[in-house]
Amino acid sequence: MASKKKLLLIDVDCGTDDAQAIMMAIAAPNIHILGITCVEGNTSLNNVCKNVLRVLKLCNRLDIPVFRGAGKPILGEAIHASDFHGSDGLGDVPDPNAPGLDLIQKEYAVDALKRIVSKHPEQISLIATGPLTNLALAVRTDSTFPQKLKALFIMGGNMESRGNTTACGEFNFLADPEAAYVVLNEFTCKTYIATWEHTCYYKLPWEWYDQWVSRGTKKADFIKKIYAHSLQYSRNNEKEIKALVGGPGFVSCDSYAMAAAIDESTVTNVIECGVTVEMCGKFTRGMMVLDLIDSLKKQNKALIMNGCDMEKFKALMEASVK
Amino acid sequence: MASKKKLLLIDVDCGTDDAQAIMMAIAAPNIHILGITCVEGNTSLNNVCKNVLRVLKLCNRLDIPVFRGAGKPILGEAIHASDFHGSDGLGDVPDPNAPGLDLIQKEYAVDALKRIVSKHPEQISLIATGPLTNLALAVRTDSTFPQKLKALFIMGGNMESRGNTTACGEFNFLADPEAAYVVLNEFTCKTYIATWEHTCYYKLPWEWYDQWVSRGTKKADFIKKIYAHSLQYSRNNEKEIKALVGGPGFVSCDSYAMAAAIDESTVTNVIECGVTVEMCGKFTRGMMVLDLIDSLKKQNKALIMNGCDMEKFKALMEASVK
Amino acid sequence: MASKKKLLLIDVDCGTDDAQAIMMAIAAPNIHILGITCVEGNTSLNNVCKNVLRVLKLCNRLDIPVFRGAGKPILGEAIHASDFHGSDGLGDVPDPNAPGLDLIQKEYAVDALKRIVSKHPEQISLIATGPLTNLALAVRTDSTFPQKLKALFIMGGNMESRGNTTACGEFNFLADPEAAYVVLNEFTCKTYIATWEHTCYYKLPWEWYDQWVSRGTKKADFIKKIYAHSLQYSRNNEKEIKALVGGPGFVSCDSYAMAAAIDESTVTNVIECGVTVEMCGKFTRGMMVLDLIDSLKKQNKALIMNGCDMEKFKALMEASVK
Amino acid sequence: MASKKKLLLIDVDCGTDDAQAIMMAIAAPNIHILGITCVEGNTSLNNVCKNVLRVLKLCNRLDIPVFRGAGKPILGEAIHASDFHGSDGLGDVPDPNAPGLDLIQKEYAVDALKRIVSKHPEQISLIATGPLTNLALAVRTDSTFPQKLKALFIMGGNMESRGNTTACGEFNFLADPEAAYVVLNEFTCKTYIATWEHTCYYKLPWEWYDQWVSRGTKKADFIKKIYAHSLQYSRNNEKEIKALVGGPGFVSCDSYAMAAAIDESTVTNVIECGVTVEMCGKFTRGMMVLDLIDSLKKQNKALIMNGCDMEKFKALMEASVK
Repeated sequence: MASKKKLLLIDVDCGTDDAQAIMMAIAAPNIHILGITCVEGNTSLNNVCKNVLRVLKLCNRLDIPVFRGAGKPILGEAIHASDFHGSDGLGDVPDPNAPGLDLIQKEYAVDALKRIVSKHPEQISLIATGPLTNLALAVRTDSTFPQKLKALFIMGGNMESRGNTTACGEFNFLADPEAAYVVLNEFTCKTYIATWEHTCYYKLPWEWYDQWVSRGTKKADFIKKIYAHSLQYSRNNEKEIKALVGGPGFVSCDSYAMAAAIDESTVTNVIECGVTVEMCGKFTRGMMVLDLIDSLKKQNKALIMNGCDMEKFKALMEASVK
Repeated sequence: MASKKKLLLIDVDCGTDDAQAIMMAIAAPNIHILGITCVEGNTSLNNVCKNVLRVLKLCNRLDIPVFRGAGKPILGEAIHASDFHGSDGLGDVPDPNAPGLDLIQKEYAVDALKRIVSKHPEQISLIATGPLTNLALAVRTDSTFPQKLKALFIMGGNMESRGNTTACGEFNFLADPEAAYVVLNEFTCKTYIATWEHTCYYKLPWEWYDQWVSRGTKKADFIKKIYAHSLQYSRNNEKEIKALVGGPGFVSCDSYAMAAAIDESTVTNVIECGVTVEMCGKFTRGMMVLDLIDSLKKQNKALIMNGCDMEKFKALMEASVK
Repeated sequence: MASKKKLLLIDVDCGTDDAQAIMMAIAAPNIHILGITCVEGNTSLNNVCKNVLRVLKLCNRLDIPVFRGAGKPILGEAIHASDFHGSDGLGDVPDPNAPGLDLIQKEYAVDALKRIVSKHPEQISLIATGPLTNLALAVRTDSTFPQKLKALFIMGGNMESRGNTTACGEFNFLADPEAAYVVLNEFTCKTYIATWEHTCYYKLPWEWYDQWVSRGTKKADFIKKIYAHSLQYSRNNEKEIKALVGGPGFVSCDSYAMAAAIDESTVTNVIECGVTVEMCGKFTRGMMVLDLIDSLKKQNKALIMNGCDMEKFKALMEASVK
Repeated sequence: MASKKKLLLIDVDCGTDDAQAIMMAIAAPNIHILGITCVEGNTSLNNVCKNVLRVLKLCNRLDIPVFRGAGKPILGEAIHASDFHGSDGLGDVPDPNAPGLDLIQKEYAVDALKRIVSKHPEQISLIATGPLTNLALAVRTDSTFPQKLKALFIMGGNMESRGNTTACGEFNFLADPEAAYVVLNEFTCKTYIATWEHTCYYKLPWEWYDQWVSRGTKKADFIKKIYAHSLQYSRNNEKEIKALVGGPGFVSCDSYAMAAAIDESTVTNVIECGVTVEMCGKFTRGMMVLDLIDSLKKQNKALIMNGCDMEKFKALMEASVK
């Protein structure tokens, strides 16, 4: 039965919007999640693992295997986003009944990714909503990994040099520029990218948000609680306000990549071009580069999301909290 | 009488659009041009000097002093744009009656800039439509130069990482990133920037272009002739077509900076923020960086043009060929 | 019995001097080689694997397991050294009886390194004579890998900015600067480094070389044959001659790292300091940086070889061809 | 009469060793100093000007014209060396009778350099003992400047990647890497470079120093006073001790460049090769690169001092305090 569903692997650095994205996938009827791999990013690797388990418990889906992955970016210097996501990555809401880390699989995330993908060649969509460290390590330890994927959906990078962490640096790519560089070079499978600007351009109105989290379901209550910290922070922090492209509203970045994986028709327009990542700039380290003039002569082109069917997107968001 | 007019200094690497911009300034009734300084860029320094003289002769304004400036960017490695502007910078149209270089002033452009600005403190608008080498040398040899300007109008850089020469590199900034960096840091005067994307967003329809150059005046004929090469090139070269942000049409980049200097109200919107230039990136060298999140804590903010009154702009363009 | 011997793991990009180093280890009576891992570098990964097997067959030691490792550096752009080592990495000498690649273990080199080291914690000396890709991947997929080593012996990098491939770039580090950076940061075990300059300062006279390869043994004949190409090349190529620090002679780079692993007393002097690798320089990418003024405040210091007991070293070299 | 003497121009960022170098030139019988140009570096530009005047007054040579030059490096971000040289650049010894800055020439240093050199084409040796900003600006505003020099003597840079300010950064080059890059590229005249390591290798014993400053002359007393601060600092500061290549002793860096200008035979050996400067490295910005393998194909080769006639050098040092 599962084989008629879309097969997903989800790689997360589980902060608030990763949690939302996982809930969206779980709520989608046509989706079978084969596993969730964790990577340090928004918060520490241990927190990421714990947060994923909390989400799965909330959704009664602790059957989905969770794997511990890279605890450091390729070069080893981590940045975190605890100001935004809270020190635990999920808004610092106490959860006395959180599942223990003993539920995490023994297998290393990179090995799990390779094993599962080999079992279902060209059938799995991989959604990556954190730094791309696990994916880079997967291809560096098995060069055939990308060709075994059906498609890759990334939340990360930027398309107009707008940064949310540094002037030109979006968090996920900045957190591991070398991994992003490797993935954009080596993953020759169909690759969608939800950039920071894209998620900002298709943000949701606060009125929508308020009704979304106020429907009284267990899931809506959870979302409301874990988002409280980041919403207060982002509404009052000058840098956050300035970083938000196109004015105020609710931006759940990772949800756009997940929505595209669940239903490709949520993406109404793309820019198709070679992309790379700047690793050496003084001001631009971590910035995604769109090679619109084909100066790099790259064979594989990425599909940079440039249009979102908001009705479909909202429907997926709403389903996730029912 | 001249003192009631706006005082301009124009720094050019005279290709086709620089020629257009000079003609626009000459045609404007409220403008007094104190001098034109030349810098290597679109074409060799000798060609730049010669091209400026040709434009001035066409307009019967050889009284305007022309000065020879920097023949190399700060670091010394020049790039040219002869594919686009022709090998002589003005479309390779033979001009047997071109004035001789003996008409160029003996004074060095950088010295002339400093001398003239000292004579009219805070009264002169400087328009820079080429690499910013002369301006950088002016401030490095006289730190008080910028504060003596009334305003600076630059054509150069990019605001959304779109390049016309490399993936992220606009020609003028890429031709001397270090000079652009110095000018954006040190010129604390009011500074308008017409970026590559801005000039593309406010391009003119080809129908408009056709009638513009077909009115049979001497000046219109000149424009038609010198533009023929670059138009043919840009309509047939794949990279040029791809680099053009927002679809086809006629883009006369330098004219937007000049129009703003002549009539500030042509600029209907600006982004005001700190800006800098990447010098060390592998893919982003020469890219202008908008520090919208104020991570660099720059005191002086630039005014990045983000809106153009097209009726006023077209009127200035039309006046220039009458 | 093996447990009383020194346990070695050898990671090679088997060109001529790697071959020599393996032969040195095999000839040493107190050494037990647990495995040889292969990495792309001097020649293609397939050639490296094949070359290691050829050396083992020559020495009747095909019992030593050989593992296939990384086929690309971390970022993916390989450089080779076929001018020097020959297109097959061993001087392009036909070997009709070379063992087949079916003798290579199924296990991936990085996994083998981690497994073997876990079995003998703090007892194994790892000698790395190629690009450090396998080692970087080992620590990135298991952060406890370095602390399980007894010691690490690297041939690579430079101590006085002398390069043999670019002006400041030594081949092994230049072939994967990111891997070298990761290894020098993360391998907190005792780490010896035989730099390019060190191996040059302690080169051997050509007279010594001539008698060394002319003793008529099967091993000496092999060495003589595989080195013929590189010696002819290095004696006639202007760049090679210029790159050789300190004048002419025979430099078998990798042998110094192996000699130190076999007998630490071959190292008569060291510089102990923090080291790192430049990744972003225009001229210095891949250069090893000695932080002699402790500006990086690194906890772990490397032992940069700065003195060699030539009598002991020659004895080890001679034993290897008996 | 002066025309039979060697003609010198001296460009300084007058700290203690610049002061020593000026005194050495003044004491040399065969030398005619045409002017001293000042550049910000060891201390602020105003301090540099004042310090030069103090040295000239001490030597009764206030007839030598002193010019104010660049107050900032090319890119604008200055570093100072006040820890070493004292906050006034000369050891913070009160000097109530210091000459006033009104004695500084009105002419800008860069203009003076160009004017004076044009008057004595190919006859002047230029000694540069600070950041190379003035020289870079001279060639960028007059490309014929270098060819009018007889020779250039630089104190700056490093030849074995040893830094005294950062791990790989020597102060003068690090203070303006872009200027150093320009000068090493564009100054095609005979160019000697006294690197940091060279001055360390030929340092003087402290016993020699003690007798040198204790001869009771006015000049020796001055040297003793202004050096007191830096000697105490460098003997007690861990970084200074570690930065000193080759063990303890007295290093008066700038004196080696001056000695070579006064008497070329003080230089007993040179490395002749293309040189450049790293501008973009994370760890190596400002490092001088020796292109010993000719990978950059530079036409003009520098003469990197690699040997010093210590008897002649000491004689020049001793003459300077008589």
